[in-house]
Amino acid sequence: MSSDKPRCHCAVFGVFGSPAAAQLTYFGLIAQQHRGQEASGIVTAEFDDTLGRARFHWHKDFGLVDDVYKDSRIMADVLKGQSAIGHNRYSTAGASDNKANIQPFTVHYRDGNIAIAHNGNLTNFRQIRTDLEQKGTIFQTTSDTEVILHLIARSSRTDQIDQIAEALALVRGAFSIVIMTDDKLIAARDNAGFRPLAIGRNWKAFVIASETVAFDIIDAEYIRDVAPGEIVIIDAESLETGEVHSRRITADPPDPHHCIFEYVYFSRPDSQIFGHSVDKVRRRLGKNLARTAPVTPKNPDDKVIVINVPDSSNTATMGYVQQMQKDGRNARMEIGLIRSHYIGRTFIQPRQEIRQNKVKTKFNPVKGVLKDRVVVVVDDSIVRGTTSKQLVQLIRQAEPKEVHFRVSSPPITHPCYYGMDFPTPSELIANQCGGDVAKIAEELGVDSLAYLTVDELIASAPQEQGQHYCTACFSGRYPVDIEAGQLKEENEP
Amino acid sequence: MSSDKPRCHCAVFGVFGSPAAAQLTYFGLIAQQHRGQEASGIVTAEFDDTLGRARFHWHKDFGLVDDVYKDSRIMADVLKGQSAIGHNRYSTAGASDNKANIQPFTVHYRDGNIAIAHNGNLTNFRQIRTDLEQKGTIFQTTSDTEVILHLIARSSRTDQIDQIAEALALVRGAFSIVIMTDDKLIAARDNAGFRPLAIGRNWKAFVIASETVAFDIIDAEYIRDVAPGEIVIIDAESLETGEVHSRRITADPPDPHHCIFEYVYFSRPDSQIFGHSVDKVRRRLGKNLARTAPVTPKNPDDKVIVINVPDSSNTATMGYVQQMQKDGRNARMEIGLIRSHYIGRTFIQPRQEIRQNKVKTKFNPVKGVLKDRVVVVVDDSIVRGTTSKQLVQLIRQAEPKEVHFRVSSPPITHPCYYGMDFPTPSELIANQCGGDVAKIAEELGVDSLAYLTVDELIASAPQEQGQHYCTACFSGRYPVDIEAGQLKEENEP
Amino acid sequence: MSSDKPRCHCAVFGVFGSPAAAQLTYFGLIAQQHRGQEASGIVTAEFDDTLGRARFHWHKDFGLVDDVYKDSRIMADVLKGQSAIGHNRYSTAGASDNKANIQPFTVHYRDGNIAIAHNGNLTNFRQIRTDLEQKGTIFQTTSDTEVILHLIARSSRTDQIDQIAEALALVRGAFSIVIMTDDKLIAARDNAGFRPLAIGRNWKAFVIASETVAFDIIDAEYIRDVAPGEIVIIDAESLETGEVHSRRITADPPDPHHCIFEYVYFSRPDSQIFGHSVDKVRRRLGKNLARTAPVTPKNPDDKVIVINVPDSSNTATMGYVQQMQKDGRNARMEIGLIRSHYIGRTFIQPRQEIRQNKVKTKFNPVKGVLKDRVVVVVDDSIVRGTTSKQLVQLIRQAEPKEVHFRVSSPPITHPCYYGMDFPTPSELIANQCGGDVAKIAEELGVDSLAYLTVDELIASAPQEQGQHYCTACFSGRYPVDIEAGQLKEENEP
Amino acid sequence: MSSDKPRCHCAVFGVFGSPAAAQLTYFGLIAQQHRGQEASGIVTAEFDDTLGRARFHWHKDFGLVDDVYKDSRIMADVLKGQSAIGHNRYSTAGASDNKANIQPFTVHYRDGNIAIAHNGNLTNFRQIRTDLEQKGTIFQTTSDTEVILHLIARSSRTDQIDQIAEALALVRGAFSIVIMTDDKLIAARDNAGFRPLAIGRNWKAFVIASETVAFDIIDAEYIRDVAPGEIVIIDAESLETGEVHSRRITADPPDPHHCIFEYVYFSRPDSQIFGHSVDKVRRRLGKNLARTAPVTPKNPDDKVIVINVPDSSNTATMGYVQQMQKDGRNARMEIGLIRSHYIGRTFIQPRQEIRQNKVKTKFNPVKGVLKDRVVVVVDDSIVRGTTSKQLVQLIRQAEPKEVHFRVSSPPITHPCYYGMDFPTPSELIANQCGGDVAKIAEELGVDSLAYLTVDELIASAPQEQGQHYCTACFSGRYPVDIEAGQLKEENEP
Repeated sequence: MSSDKPRCHCAVFGVFGSPAAAQLTYFGLIAQQHRGQEASGIVTAEFDDTLGRARFHWHKDFGLVDDVYKDSRIMADVLKGQSAIGHNRYSTAGASDNKANIQPFTVHYRDGNIAIAHNGNLTNFRQIRTDLEQKGTIFQTTSDTEVILHLIARSSRTDQIDQIAEALALVRGAFSIVIMTDDKLIAARDNAGFRPLAIGRNWKAFVIASETVAFDIIDAEYIRDVAPGEIVIIDAESLETGEVHSRRITADPPDPHHCIFEYVYFSRPDSQIFGHSVDKVRRRLGKNLARTAPVTPKNPDDKVIVINVPDSSNTATMGYVQQMQKDGRNARMEIGLIRSHYIGRTFIQPRQEIRQNKVKTKFNPVKGVLKDRVVVVVDDSIVRGTTSKQLVQLIRQAEPKEVHFRVSSPPITHPCYYGMDFPTPSELIANQCGGDVAKIAEELGVDSLAYLTVDELIASAPQEQGQHYCTACFSGRYPVDIEAGQLKEENEP
Repeated sequence: MSSDKPRCHCAVFGVFGSPAAAQLTYFGLIAQQHRGQEASGIVTAEFDDTLGRARFHWHKDFGLVDDVYKDSRIMADVLKGQSAIGHNRYSTAGASDNKANIQPFTVHYRDGNIAIAHNGNLTNFRQIRTDLEQKGTIFQTTSDTEVILHLIARSSRTDQIDQIAEALALVRGAFSIVIMTDDKLIAARDNAGFRPLAIGRNWKAFVIASETVAFDIIDAEYIRDVAPGEIVIIDAESLETGEVHSRRITADPPDPHHCIFEYVYFSRPDSQIFGHSVDKVRRRLGKNLARTAPVTPKNPDDKVIVINVPDSSNTATMGYVQQMQKDGRNARMEIGLIRSHYIGRTFIQPRQEIRQNKVKTKFNPVKGVLKDRVVVVVDDSIVRGTTSKQLVQLIRQAEPKEVHFRVSSPPITHPCYYGMDFPTPSELIANQCGGDVAKIAEELGVDSLAYLTVDELIASAPQEQGQHYCTACFSGRYPVDIEAGQLKEENEP
Repeated sequence: MSSDKPRCHCAVFGVFGSPAAAQLTYFGLIAQQHRGQEASGIVTAEFDDTLGRARFHWHKDFGLVDDVYKDSRIMADVLKGQSAIGHNRYSTAGASDNKANIQPFTVHYRDGNIAIAHNGNLTNFRQIRTDLEQKGTIFQTTSDTEVILHLIARSSRTDQIDQIAEALALVRGAFSIVIMTDDKLIAARDNAGFRPLAIGRNWKAFVIASETVAFDIIDAEYIRDVAPGEIVIIDAESLETGEVHSRRITADPPDPHHCIFEYVYFSRPDSQIFGHSVDKVRRRLGKNLARTAPVTPKNPDDKVIVINVPDSSNTATMGYVQQMQKDGRNARMEIGLIRSHYIGRTFIQPRQEIRQNKVKTKFNPVKGVLKDRVVVVVDDSIVRGTTSKQLVQLIRQAEPKEVHFRVSSPPITHPCYYGMDFPTPSELIANQCGGDVAKIAEELGVDSLAYLTVDELIASAPQEQGQHYCTACFSGRYPVDIEAGQLKEENEP
Repeated sequence: MSSDKPRCHCAVFGVFGSPAAAQLTYFGLIAQQHRGQEASGIVTAEFDDTLGRARFHWHKDFGLVDDVYKDSRIMADVLKGQSAIGHNRYSTAGASDNKANIQPFTVHYRDGNIAIAHNGNLTNFRQIRTDLEQKGTIFQTTSDTEVILHLIARSSRTDQIDQIAEALALVRGAFSIVIMTDDKLIAARDNAGFRPLAIGRNWKAFVIASETVAFDIIDAEYIRDVAPGEIVIIDAESLETGEVHSRRITADPPDPHHCIFEYVYFSRPDSQIFGHSVDKVRRRLGKNLARTAPVTPKNPDDKVIVINVPDSSNTATMGYVQQMQKDGRNARMEIGLIRSHYIGRTFIQPRQEIRQNKVKTKFNPVKGVLKDRVVVVVDDSIVRGTTSKQLVQLIRQAEPKEVHFRVSSPPITHPCYYGMDFPTPSELIANQCGGDVAKIAEELGVDSLAYLTVDELIASAPQEQGQHYCTACFSGRYPVDIEAGQLKEENEP
């Protein structure tokens, strides 16, 4: 899949105990820019011995990380302190043009300052919000995340970690969050562990990130993931002992359902996700796709070239070609599409017209490579199909003999309620074509089309005892209930 | 008084029922720019028939009104709707560098959207905030105004106006506020009526403003003031009947204590404040000052010229000269100081160093006018005295024979808890000189100095049955109690 | 005159030999902002001992001085050096939207770097430009000033001052210029001395400015004017001796024809222009206007109040009232119009629609002052009449008994070719009404209208041996010939 | 080569006869952004029937194309017209911080408006500039390009194309230029044809570009290259006939010496350069590199993986691997480095410190791919070697068994005087190590290092009758003389 991708709605980052807290967060967000390009924010805590508590400083705005913090005074003069949390957003819940919705959120309650950054989507937040409003709570944002802050503040518990645990026990759905208080950094993950969340160490400081690439860029060491259902607490003691504190949100045993789409598309290939190398899994997707859906040219003398859609399908394409070659098939990898570095990801612009225009400004076919060849395009997924269709048209201009399309994941048919922002089901090409792959192929204008099945997809991913994958967008099987109010869209088609 | 003025902390504006709601608000804020130059915000309500409620749109930022809304798309594309409220801020309560503190505040609670803009200062907000935090409320700002929103949301009443009345009955101090809901515009004023608040009409639409100059600029008709302790409600019915709805916050009778400093300095002379023309009152201050403190040259043959400090003391100076001439004294008004139009009011910059530098960039003496004359400078007030001192030095460079200083208000000795932002008492020149006018004169470097007394001041202002003035900054007599936490500064000297 | 004023097209400033060259220039431009609000530029020369010549640094942009240099790095990091020249522009010659036209211009030629800033208008530049183009010269701007640089570069003289003198001998019209070379600052003025140009001293450094207010703001001492036809050269030697070098452009004797409009409106009242205090002259204009055109109320019992149009007619109004009172007439000065500080001069916006809208945002009548009074508005001049008409309408809304208009200059009937930017003759109200004052009065909607005559105007200005005034805009008498190509507009009506 | 690349100093683009001239230019510049990221400019010509000539409009600024034109009004309101030329700059000649140096340059001379954009570097411009200055010419920029405009304007010829031919005959060195006049678009190329320049067609309009990728993005058809020494003229007649006019600069026969570095690194692989597909040539470089410098692991059982430095060496790497495999060697392509899309090319920042820091933010090794493998890094070139060294360090962190480096071009040893901006010779790693490849390998920290030789490089590029390549940066053989003043740097080491 090359564009009109599902939008992952966030990256989170946190650091505790570093003199360069804001700078580390900045680089952690830069490395995770692919998880959210619409807005970015950083909140720092500067401990004030006189006050006996921290001052919180923040800066947030719409735009890419580099733009949001480009005024050098922001890092130098505003974002002071030894701990920080940060967030990149791709809007899912929350209107995209409302600045108040940019995370992290930072407020004050009876036990001090508190800030939060959240990756995922709560499935029962409307009910909780309604309940809280009935009790007299005001809401400043339309984001699901805000309810967590109110639940913490309204908890009857006196210990702050107890308050947080109580709040997190009440929300359902997907949450990989970092919370900063006057003297602690807390990381927590829902019991299904839909979204990744990793713990690392940079010198004495602890760092938290959605993906381990954020550790690589700052030379931090990856220690382990926050476990599903776990709350990790980092405080002054942790800096001394080198150990984090850990407890569970509830007594329930973890019931992992990792988002398999993180392996398919979201995460960077150089990240470790759910404890495994994304590169390896993604390559296996390509290999299995080659096993189940190889391409044979109509004329056996024709050369078959396999091309990637840079850069999202690079790894899967490489796996596909390697397997084809291993199986003794006529196939060679080529670079048939050149991607411009000066256009952002195609989905950055929220409007249909501009997205369509951007296909051409983003990709250019290498005519000499494609002309008269049997071309196999490997992509990671297809959503609306509009971009794939335009891409095929671009490739056809270079006059290949045949164009085949191979997708390293199954057809997308259902909405995600755990943090990905797909279009409504009726806009998905798989639904528009009634799930008929031949019809999709016709729509795309390709000579053949093949996907991985859900079972093949699962089989390609790492298997661990008691661990499942969430495949809801492909299968409609939702591991965690969705509250009624949110189901609307699903019924639309 | 020419600079290092007390900072008035706000102007409010509201409009209901106009197709040009945002534009009217923009001009209403432009006309009231003198009441707050640090930040500005506008919130509009766009009624959506499908939703059966309004969408709220907002834009806020630091800067002058013209800068905040200079991107033409803000007015055209963002601030849509038929009602709007706006706010200019000069920070009093609330840290000045935190964007979250820029008003109007807009939130959602169980009965819909609600936005608020506030001029004044609540004297018991710390206690209320602590209470609310104990009950689990989170605060997004450090502003006193936010408590009003929480109190409304937490009210047990079902009617929105009852909720507002209940909330306003709980807060003490000074508040002239406008509140916008999905279908109403509400204006209310504390029972002492410290700050002004006027009702006007622009075609069918109703408008609310701190000062009537905001009506003049949009050709709106001034109808009346919101009365102390009154809540005025404007809704769809009002547009038809041409009548607002009115009720009282509590059953308590109004106990008006209008801020007399509005007459001395804050309000524009072309405004009607507390039902009276500021120009007339301000001129009377000058006249009474001439009666009680005329200037006689040491050498009777020397010409006495009276100069204003443009533009804040223009009116008082004119009154002073007219009375002097009426009393047959040797005196003539002259323009001895030219004010540059390209430097903002001296107090715009919050830092001491820049303020001092700005005196010279702001005023230039007309040497030919001042040289060899007996010069009387009439100013409206003296706060720290630093600017007055620099001004006298500037005037001395033009080699006048004598320099006399006349102030159309009493020495400022006490902090204001009702919405003006004076420096701490110990920084006030009147306190630094132990209230000794001769010593202040010496400090300023003038040949003589005279103020109005508090009684003379009150006598110069309009007198109405049952109506008092708040003279706390001059007299230390506070008509409404101040909560303990806020008294700190007062005890400092 | 209150707005739709003739646009003065420039202020110049220069400094030689100061460690704070750029800062002094900045303040010199701030103080002269009234002479040009459309664009501003500063060029500095940083002497480099290694190179044996200076590096020139510059920053220019559209906007007010404060906006153009608001990035603090411009002053600190870019505009380094010990000499500098600066310019504020109100476009006359040269399209207003072309950045290349913003002065100072800075180029390199065979004898090094050279930069120029110019106030005035050359009347034969089209002919010179055509000649130069025939010889193979390219032009980067549409400004008349550029020809001076080419003439200098093309001079056959080897001495730089000789080159400059030769170039200036070839151009005709109005020029008060500052030129900066690698090691000198040169100031020169056309032989008629249309526009002012003054020499001052700030510590050891020499400064040059259009108006002396630029000296006041930086505590520089005003020494003398650059004489008509004089070239003043300031170099390293001048710093030591405290003396400037002087020579004449040509052997012709000076033939001074100072622009009398500088006294009427352009210059700030606190400036010394052509060796005299603007304040004094402007007051005399008001006095003479009162002598020749006093106002008598229809009903002798009615109070006559005289109001200024702030701030441009403040001084003339004061003179008018003083004379009226001296003559025992019923008249009192009042502040009847409040000017907002947050809207720039009315003519800042180049478009008719916005200019009209700005009248109301700029002025607000004080109703209590005007109601039922016989009001005399004193203004300095009337151009198109549109603003005056709107002003009278504004005043009429306050229900005065009568409105009389008095203008402290004659009707404007002709274009200026020496540096003022009047509208085309057909747009001038005096021409539209065929010079019939009664008809103009009717058009403005006033009960009576009176101007000064040209002779009265001249008689009000300082008289010196051999010195004349240019009154072309009032009288059509042009002291210096205009080249054919520029006369077009004049013939239009 | 991954960074600290030679800086190509420009892309040019031109269009004649399109209603969307500015938009096409914008996209043409976007597609050529890789040739210059420091500044961008567009000039359009809007023909005015009344004037009988065109109005020229322009917009230029520092920054990437997307930033420079981000204000939508620039395209819509400013850049009107039917023809346009544009330029992306990477500063070579001309100080990088001087806005006046941003191209296209646009001026007026006796025959009308003229604008120019230039890719390349003139080798005798200092002498010409000195000559012109002696004749009285002023220079507004420090760019070599400006002399062309003066030479045109000073030509004694009356026909504009004759003037241009005369001017171009006088300059030496590299120039691929587009010139726009009131009614024509002219494209010309120096007699050696150092830099590419292609002609295309978009509907009826003609387009000119440095690289054909600029045609692809706007669906223009590539027609042919401008020949070395040719002047191509496009005018109204061309639109009708579909034919351009052509003449030669001088009678000299073309002596092509195409810059071979365009094939090695500069041009995009999807471009046609000098009539050939860059992709094909670059792949051949990789193949020949594999032939002459294959890698054999110390332990034959170790797997050899070949990795690219994305994206600059993608194509060469693919060729390298294909040849290795064809030769039956143990080798497999892998993606071992992930490039972040959110950091620009490494050389965007002109300062050494930032460049070094950017290596890590730009590339991240995929540990699972590299660990325990014999890694071959294929890069296109090495300049200073600093980036390569850092890259090797990054790769070493992933614990490969061996790291080998293969470069698809020879060691860079000499400066380029024809349009590339290499560091001074003493900074080149090949010179620092005395040309000793073993020493360079040691410096980089690799197990082995190999380059292509100059002969192998030439042999890999397309061979045509009478056509040569410029290999000066590798060989020191300069096909066109360099004027004395420019040789300075070369002698430095």
